[in-house]
Amino acid sequence: MSAIQKNVEQTSESYSASFTQGHLALPPAKKYLVLTCMDARIDPARAFGIELGDAHVIRNAGASAVDALRSIVISEQLLGTNEIVLVKHTGCGMLTFKNEDAYGIVEKNLGEEAVAELTAKNLDFLPFPELEKAVEDDVAFLKASKLVPDSVTISGWIYEVESGKTRRVV
Amino acid sequence: MSAIQKNVEQTSESYSASFTQGHLALPPAKKYLVLTCMDARIDPARAFGIELGDAHVIRNAGASAVDALRSIVISEQLLGTNEIVLVKHTGCGMLTFKNEDAYGIVEKNLGEEAVAELTAKNLDFLPFPELEKAVEDDVAFLKASKLVPDSVTISGWIYEVESGKTRRVV
Repeated sequence: MSAIQKNVEQTSESYSASFTQGHLALPPAKKYLVLTCMDARIDPARAFGIELGDAHVIRNAGASAVDALRSIVISEQLLGTNEIVLVKHTGCGMLTFKNEDAYGIVEKNLGEEAVAELTAKNLDFLPFPELEKAVEDDVAFLKASKLVPDSVTISGWIYEVESGKTRRVV
Repeated sequence: MSAIQKNVEQTSESYSASFTQGHLALPPAKKYLVLTCMDARIDPARAFGIELGDAHVIRNAGASAVDALRSIVISEQLLGTNEIVLVKHTGCGMLTFKNEDAYGIVEKNLGEEAVAELTAKNLDFLPFPELEKAVEDDVAFLKASKLVPDSVTISGWIYEVESGKTRRVV
């Protein structure tokens, strides 16, 4: 067993020993979803004030709304959420490369078969060159989608990994 | 401003006031990633023992490895992680419907144009009928992918929303 796996088992014992929230319902109590980045420096519950049971939290590389669309539709249409809080962040890895760089790294590290798998899936890594514009573009994408009705409230934010602050963009 | 948005602003003030971790590096310090569900009843940091800066956290509807592949490749190839902890959970919404049900709900709620958008994107909601098998299938998918080299350690787990426990499946 790896040290990481041992940590999961030990945390399970301590967390469950004092766990008192086994009664929470499946649909988010406050009917909203937070979409943010997978970045290790973000703790959405603490930084954005999410109590257990209150909101769906979707996380992927770059907080991409395009990538998250499947989860967003499930959240809204099957589980009743009607507000989206989209949060990208300073220092994001997605600002540092282009698709061709990522394809090149995959080829160098994993070989031609891996690149063939990327190509077969037509995989777009969805990097972006400018942070505020990426927030605006993703909010615009959601507002334009027929899968997100006008009744859904959408806001776009930037979390500052240097200060712990979250500021509104749109 | 909505109550949700006001909560984000107020939390930003209090969280940043005592924030002391602005120095953390972009690559996860413990070189692993956690893939889990967007479900509102899961707090990965507390339930799985993740300290700020230690791990990427990817979340989507159902903790789908297929859906998360873009983020996983970025995490490993660009940011140096080499271990995946995949956690699905009891009471998951993805156990409760099939693709045709979701398409039907979208058509009823949002109309034909929305269904056309789903169809154009060939969107698979990736539901699953059996929890343990879904964990096994997703781990097998990652192990079979050329984009995830054999050097990456992969484990599959189930979090129990009723008890706060996390138990290993594979």
